[in-house]
Amino acid sequence: MSISPSAALDAGRGPAEHDVRTQIIEAATAHFSHYGYDKTTVSDLAKAIGFSKAYIYKFFASKQAIGEVICANCLAQIESDVHAALQGVDAAPDRLRVLFTAIVEASLRLFLQDRRLYEIAVAAATDRWPSTQAYQGRIRQLVEVILKDGRASGAFENQTPLDQTSRAVYQILVPYLNPVTLPHLSVMHEESPTALQELVLRSLSPQRV
Amino acid sequence: MSISPSAALDAGRGPAEHDVRTQIIEAATAHFSHYGYDKTTVSDLAKAIGFSKAYIYKFFASKQAIGEVICANCLAQIESDVHAALQGVDAAPDRLRVLFTAIVEASLRLFLQDRRLYEIAVAAATDRWPSTQAYQGRIRQLVEVILKDGRASGAFENQTPLDQTSRAVYQILVPYLNPVTLPHLSVMHEESPTALQELVLRSLSPQRV
Repeated sequence: MSISPSAALDAGRGPAEHDVRTQIIEAATAHFSHYGYDKTTVSDLAKAIGFSKAYIYKFFASKQAIGEVICANCLAQIESDVHAALQGVDAAPDRLRVLFTAIVEASLRLFLQDRRLYEIAVAAATDRWPSTQAYQGRIRQLVEVILKDGRASGAFENQTPLDQTSRAVYQILVPYLNPVTLPHLSVMHEESPTALQELVLRSLSPQRV
Repeated sequence: MSISPSAALDAGRGPAEHDVRTQIIEAATAHFSHYGYDKTTVSDLAKAIGFSKAYIYKFFASKQAIGEVICANCLAQIESDVHAALQGVDAAPDRLRVLFTAIVEASLRLFLQDRRLYEIAVAAATDRWPSTQAYQGRIRQLVEVILKDGRASGAFENQTPLDQTSRAVYQILVPYLNPVTLPHLSVMHEESPTALQELVLRSLSPQRV
């Protein structure tokens, strides 16, 4: 296996495996966000970072493996934005409103700010990478927890099966989470998801106002 | 302008312009559904039909102009399926249920049966061809009419602004109508839109059951 001079140098300096992985991910993120994910090969990446292809392959089995980490980082950013927005919001209906607004905004931000990085998200959604599956599972879980809390506090109705209703609410949210579908929805054209939220909240309310 | 022998023959038989257009559309539909829309050129099409390229251009300004007619035909088929399903269904809540189910089924059928023809639908949705815009407008109108009828009969609540609520219901339907987004939704994986329908209907109901 050939090791490039710079890689050998790094190895000489003795960076922990974790650090080299981080370094590759950071460089790859910058590279992909400039040149795009689809058209970049591991060779291009290696050349840009100044590592040998073989050295990169020591840490990542494929371009997709690098993409998976970047994708997971992006999704973690969206989730962190959502949790920050939910901070201090107590009532279940408000939490659901904030969840809808914050997740759509965070997803749009990723799409609009970094179109080329977005290619990774599209590949991830299309090929159902584990990171996106796990992310969707956590959002679905978050919806269910909000519904459960709302039922416990009397803010939401209690007659329908919780799993069916939380799946339906999640299903309404899904097209706005998926990077392939998001650009085709009206939020892209300055229509906010407010009407959608209010429809969902009326559906969940225990009685008519 | 050169006219191919077969076209000249057709001209000799004196087909009306309408008939030649229909003939081109039928041949193009068959060709696209076999070889795909994206990779086929007007030259390929002309060769396959046995017309000259120039002759085709007499009737259609571009490949997209042919695609637009095929797309409009597909959408007309979906709408005709939906209206057939709605036949004899009177109560507004039932009509809304049937609309959801029938439109998702008809769209899926088009997607699953004719993947290559589906490329046209994708191009149409991505580039916002007039036929898809008009189709969406008609479906949106249909939703509003059902909601209006339901309000008049007392089946649906009357407190919310009709336009806002019908837009929200339509927004829930949109991802299932759009050929780009449809394959990424759970209905593709045998999850029916039933939970979604029921959530919407609870939201529209004038009082809790």
